[in-house]
Amino acid sequence: MTQPRPNTFDPASLKFDDRGLIPAIAQDHGSGEVLMMAWMNAASVAETLASGRVTYWSRSRGELWRKGETSGHIQRLVEMRLDCDRDCLLVIVEQTGPACHTNRRSCFFTAVSDGMETELSKPEF
Amino acid sequence: MTQPRPNTFDPASLKFDDRGLIPAIAQDHGSGEVLMMAWMNAASVAETLASGRVTYWSRSRGELWRKGETSGHIQRLVEMRLDCDRDCLLVIVEQTGPACHTNRRSCFFTAVSDGMETELSKPEF
Repeated sequence: MTQPRPNTFDPASLKFDDRGLIPAIAQDHGSGEVLMMAWMNAASVAETLASGRVTYWSRSRGELWRKGETSGHIQRLVEMRLDCDRDCLLVIVEQTGPACHTNRRSCFFTAVSDGMETELSKPEF
Repeated sequence: MTQPRPNTFDPASLKFDDRGLIPAIAQDHGSGEVLMMAWMNAASVAETLASGRVTYWSRSRGELWRKGETSGHIQRLVEMRLDCDRDCLLVIVEQTGPACHTNRRSCFFTAVSDGMETELSKPEF
């Protein structure tokens, strides 16, 4: 007999790239705004789920990046989702303060239209 | 005298990875739902802007992927945005039909909670 396929989640079942990383998109729970995209490794996925605080992998520093640890601009995890190919994550979050290091709410504050760049928002402080 | 910094957009000013690719997140213009994440190269960025039809780079096929060319599930570009580091794109789209190859509206149809995976939506057909 075929065993029913268990639906327990194992971070190792995700498809990480050759650096051991997976892209993670952060979306604001309230507004639906896409706030940022950063990277996670298996340890940061596990820590995010265990702590309820979104934790990325800093490629520049080569260490776990507990979002907001320095700035206070933390992301509380509302829900983690994965895509059909298991190679991208969507984290729905409650964002304290700006998500962007430029102190804008979202990192995606530059629009392109008619061959020009337009700044959509200013720093909050 | 300092020249004013032009704000014309040049796809070559984006930060592509060592494969020449940049992640592109597609978000539904109407609902704000995050639909999918795929990759673009400089040529697909340029074609997306020129045609108004979202065009990715297929890593598996090694060719331009004009989203919906086979399925009819096209993405009309409403706005392209780039992030603070210029290494990720957000395309706001009008999606015809499902975005996911599984015929679900969004690729992010699996949620993780309490160590279990939950299916959030069914195929539309």
